[in-house]
Amino acid sequence: MPSALPLSAALLSLLTASPKAPAPAAVTGPSPQVAERLIGAALTEGHAWARLAELTDGIGSRLSGSEGAEAAVQWAKRSFEADGVKVWLEPVKVPRWVRGEESARVLGSERFRAHPLSILALGGSVSTPAGGLTAEVIEVRSLDEVVALGDKVKGKIVLFNHAMREAMEYGKYAGLRTRGTSVAAKAGAVGVLVRSLATASLRSPHTGAVRYDEGVERIPAAAVSVEDAELLHRLLAGGPVKVELKLGCQTLPDADSFNVVAEVKGREKPQEVVLLGAHLDSWDVGTGAHDDGAGVAMVMEAARLIGKLKPAPRRTVRVVLFANEENGLRGGRAYAEAHAAELANHVAALEMDSGGFRPVGVVLRAGPGGAELVRSWLRPLEALGAGSILQGEAGGADLSPLLPARVPFVGVRVDISRYFDVHHSEADTLDKVDPKDLAQSTAAVAWVGYVLAEVPEVLPRPEAPPTEAPKAPAAP
Amino acid sequence: MPSALPLSAALLSLLTASPKAPAPAAVTGPSPQVAERLIGAALTEGHAWARLAELTDGIGSRLSGSEGAEAAVQWAKRSFEADGVKVWLEPVKVPRWVRGEESARVLGSERFRAHPLSILALGGSVSTPAGGLTAEVIEVRSLDEVVALGDKVKGKIVLFNHAMREAMEYGKYAGLRTRGTSVAAKAGAVGVLVRSLATASLRSPHTGAVRYDEGVERIPAAAVSVEDAELLHRLLAGGPVKVELKLGCQTLPDADSFNVVAEVKGREKPQEVVLLGAHLDSWDVGTGAHDDGAGVAMVMEAARLIGKLKPAPRRTVRVVLFANEENGLRGGRAYAEAHAAELANHVAALEMDSGGFRPVGVVLRAGPGGAELVRSWLRPLEALGAGSILQGEAGGADLSPLLPARVPFVGVRVDISRYFDVHHSEADTLDKVDPKDLAQSTAAVAWVGYVLAEVPEVLPRPEAPPTEAPKAPAAP
Repeated sequence: MPSALPLSAALLSLLTASPKAPAPAAVTGPSPQVAERLIGAALTEGHAWARLAELTDGIGSRLSGSEGAEAAVQWAKRSFEADGVKVWLEPVKVPRWVRGEESARVLGSERFRAHPLSILALGGSVSTPAGGLTAEVIEVRSLDEVVALGDKVKGKIVLFNHAMREAMEYGKYAGLRTRGTSVAAKAGAVGVLVRSLATASLRSPHTGAVRYDEGVERIPAAAVSVEDAELLHRLLAGGPVKVELKLGCQTLPDADSFNVVAEVKGREKPQEVVLLGAHLDSWDVGTGAHDDGAGVAMVMEAARLIGKLKPAPRRTVRVVLFANEENGLRGGRAYAEAHAAELANHVAALEMDSGGFRPVGVVLRAGPGGAELVRSWLRPLEALGAGSILQGEAGGADLSPLLPARVPFVGVRVDISRYFDVHHSEADTLDKVDPKDLAQSTAAVAWVGYVLAEVPEVLPRPEAPPTEAPKAPAAP
Repeated sequence: MPSALPLSAALLSLLTASPKAPAPAAVTGPSPQVAERLIGAALTEGHAWARLAELTDGIGSRLSGSEGAEAAVQWAKRSFEADGVKVWLEPVKVPRWVRGEESARVLGSERFRAHPLSILALGGSVSTPAGGLTAEVIEVRSLDEVVALGDKVKGKIVLFNHAMREAMEYGKYAGLRTRGTSVAAKAGAVGVLVRSLATASLRSPHTGAVRYDEGVERIPAAAVSVEDAELLHRLLAGGPVKVELKLGCQTLPDADSFNVVAEVKGREKPQEVVLLGAHLDSWDVGTGAHDDGAGVAMVMEAARLIGKLKPAPRRTVRVVLFANEENGLRGGRAYAEAHAAELANHVAALEMDSGGFRPVGVVLRAGPGGAELVRSWLRPLEALGAGSILQGEAGGADLSPLLPARVPFVGVRVDISRYFDVHHSEADTLDKVDPKDLAQSTAAVAWVGYVLAEVPEVLPRPEAPPTEAPKAPAAP
């Protein structure tokens, strides 16, 4: 029981009344009885886990535009209804990209025999010609290196090989996957292989979205397993290496989908909204258990538990299960557009999208004084190890369209150290989510959601919208 | 540098003259200068690693009968020649099994949508009908359970789901893979899925040989990833589950191959042979880096280093790179047959086939007094953490045909705790072998091989051949 330790340690620190523990009188806001009810239920009833199993085992993968995505929308609606939570669907047009047959191999040479490569086309990639494309590989570590190489990139397959070792480095290297393909195409490359953004590998490639710049040729792009990136590196040390790449993926016409929106109406200020979000879509590999089935389970369960409170909280708690976070962000944009008139009344928004791991604290994006306010509400989360305000900014890809409206963001941060072992890969399956961790994070989300909706105070809004969206370390 | 710790700790224990350390006078046998030379060279020259890279990156997988296997034979011969070690090829007819297109999926039902399953046909499996076969799954934990279920198994796909968690449990469960299919067929099953024998999984199936009993129907069999075995278990808890299995594998006519035999002639008793073995074939997935490229690299390097000694050791050191360990053992049998007349002169045999990990000690299968004799030679391995005789019996699949001749077996045991993370899977690649560990095990093998060939004494032969081959924990 590895997760028992932080809990015990935190309890112990409470019992021994360490100097850091606030005095009991410092607890403000809603009643301790509600904290007991929400946190106790989240930790003991096992609903979040059961819900996640329904989504991952019952439905499986749910890439935008797929039958799985549509099934997930209907499942979520039925589940909210079964929980007695008001729910509706808001239309979103989503892209529909479909993986085809795909393979890659190193061609044999005088120095070595042919090697199969373990790949996954990047989401959104164009296909190769039907017979595949064959080209020499050129290895780079950064976008700048592509530019510096100039003509040497022409006609080549660019291998973006990087040194990601830890989860916190995801943000540092994710640009190679999203932006590298157009940078390579501009330099004349004919294809791209990106070393998987992974912290563990058993020859297991990790996909993710490729972003094609307007006006730049669209060239095929795939993620390659860590092992195969290292193989290519070793082979390249001895001379030229040719790779044959075959991708049969295609982009079909946009499909109809939905954001699933559910809410528990506020008793006193129903027009004021606390948004709890997660995204319902996943990649087409694995079953999106951590990304973002876990987030979906947490916010659905928060709504169910808050919905059972009598009286209801002061403000409205609204859960949004966004469509199309992974390859388009159409759900996040559609929500911001459809609700533009009421965004000034969104008093806080939270998105869970970093896996179903144990909670480690709370992050904020709010105006001056926000941290002090929130800190006073976190006492009930101390025994879960989540009672502190952490450095770093709250965010979430689906929330980024809310930035111009200066909606305060709150985040329950989870321990992401093992997230990128499975993220965007076939291995993102239910067995990887620890029911204890999921229950603890669910408890934290339920409490934070409730308290934001209940306390008399509202968070100060952030002073000015940034010029571009902040990057959460574990998103998208 | 995780492997630095045991080394330092062992050195420290020598320096502090702990009561367990034997007095310097206890060192018997060959000169300390030879120990310095062999162990120093193995630890500093990096040849074993370079050789393993040639085999895995240069040739790759090498299943019996494949082009890779033939290329490996020629490579090994060239490499021994380049090292100045006498080498020849001994013919072996090997089976030729070829993997085809393969897939499996859970069919959708009212309870769940369809799920793809991550599988690998077991080596030697027959194919399914071209359109695949579809049947309900029945889950069992043991061979006995199949028998106990009787008629309930008829027409079903049997899922052998087991609880392997640690490397040392491999021997306990490997029979489900090798023998389970015929047991299931006898009970009327139409196909078999075996949970991969794995200690880590990222949806990564592990293959291995299936053994069809004479007179029993041959039904198709595949390994399924740990995750998918768990998925099937969860789905079965709610009712019937149907799986569609498609295997396109086939067995072609036997192919010509070779054991690669090399030797350093003994200076005084050339007719007495110390055999150092490993197997040159691998499965068709991954590049057989741990299984058994590492063993090949160790014994080749031992021959190279021993071959440079002047004078040569008293007896002949013979390296045998066996063909077809994985799916037939034809190489081991061919060697025993071809050399039947000289097996009485085989004074010891050692096979390295548990991965390229750090050495942890020495095991034996010899007559009374053998352990005391060997113990007195192991002082030079203490600083590598391999200076003790361990519980357990030495063996090796390719050595098992030597049992009736009562050849003493010696083994350098390695730390197998992570072996089954990659064993028989796509993930058994060069990057998984730590060069430090490989160098240390190579040093131990070189020393043990040398000392067995040099000291005046020979190991007492084991008293009686057992009725069946002993099972090494990490073989085949």
